[in-house]
Amino acid sequence: MKKTEIKIYKEILKAEGEWAAKTRESLRKHNILMLNLIGSPGCGKTALLEALLPLLLKKLRCAVLEGDVETARDAERLKDLGIPVSQIITQGTCHLGAQIVNKAVQELPLADLDLIFVENVGNLVCPTEFDIGEAAKLAVLSVTEGEDKPLKYPLLFRKAGAAVLTKIDLLPHLPFDRVKCLEFISQVNGRLPVFEISALKEQGTLTLADWISAFEIG
Amino acid sequence: MKKTEIKIYKEILKAEGEWAAKTRESLRKHNILMLNLIGSPGCGKTALLEALLPLLLKKLRCAVLEGDVETARDAERLKDLGIPVSQIITQGTCHLGAQIVNKAVQELPLADLDLIFVENVGNLVCPTEFDIGEAAKLAVLSVTEGEDKPLKYPLLFRKAGAAVLTKIDLLPHLPFDRVKCLEFISQVNGRLPVFEISALKEQGTLTLADWISAFEIG
Repeated sequence: MKKTEIKIYKEILKAEGEWAAKTRESLRKHNILMLNLIGSPGCGKTALLEALLPLLLKKLRCAVLEGDVETARDAERLKDLGIPVSQIITQGTCHLGAQIVNKAVQELPLADLDLIFVENVGNLVCPTEFDIGEAAKLAVLSVTEGEDKPLKYPLLFRKAGAAVLTKIDLLPHLPFDRVKCLEFISQVNGRLPVFEISALKEQGTLTLADWISAFEIG
Repeated sequence: MKKTEIKIYKEILKAEGEWAAKTRESLRKHNILMLNLIGSPGCGKTALLEALLPLLLKKLRCAVLEGDVETARDAERLKDLGIPVSQIITQGTCHLGAQIVNKAVQELPLADLDLIFVENVGNLVCPTEFDIGEAAKLAVLSVTEGEDKPLKYPLLFRKAGAAVLTKIDLLPHLPFDRVKCLEFISQVNGRLPVFEISALKEQGTLTLADWISAFEIG
């Protein structure tokens, strides 16, 4: 990048950082936990929410912000849960920005919430680089993607507060080396808790819901 | 984006376009077909190459450019084929740029090649926006990602020369609606040929190899 480009990129990141700080402040004031789900297209982020929310709603008041390049299909999948769900359409942009997330957060009934899930745009690279004011990023990886992804896309696993391995019901049908995958995650981030989940078969969802319920906002 | 940002973005795209044109000119001169594989992380792009190349090498002289954020793992998977394979590591960048691809293409033995595969960075969004001098983009979508992806990430399916549905051996174990997926692809791009493949079980690979062999550079 040329000097001017670097300067403008830094300015964008600085402005984004300021919006993220504003969001974080609002969430602290209302004691709301915000989790930012990041993973490839089709890794099962929405299915994970469909499985987790009924469990979490027994104890916590939840809302969801859905981020997508196009369509409101993911928000529609969650509408029967009877909770606030907003769809942010990025119109081609590959990640959620901090300013638009701030706007969407401010429009939620913050006084009546304990937990906000943000489902970022399906993308293992770009959303990782942008702080949107979340308490933690959750790295979502489906076992169908192969055990080497933590090494090939290490930044997300380095920055995440937890990793979620999804679609484990498919393991008998895949050439996926589970032990190697856990080793690779550990190589990139030795302290990262890993949850192994099948949203369809409701395996492992209770353990992850308990971890989220007990999460202490830092 | 502010005015200055838009100006610089346009400048970057213009410079990229010039590099893509240079690459295209070199490839035309040597009558080489270059195909740009785009799909999510773990959708099976490298496995597709592992299955296709032994078939294509019977008729065509091939090379591969591997694009990754980090590691040379994909290039290593292909090294036993005895063909030129270069790994481009983008160091965090979410797509292959036209300039670095031009450099990598120029370093290949162009007089001895008929076909170059570029495996782009695993990402369904960003690589789509950048012309790297290819004759056609191949949209690679694994059936594990769900049938709605052509609607959620339409730009790639609009721009592609063909779509490849991978991992079809997993269909009996997935809640994937094949007919709907084909309908969604057709809604986005009614003229797009679709190839249904299992690289592991070598299903459909011969048909795709024939299509590639018969491809007329426009």
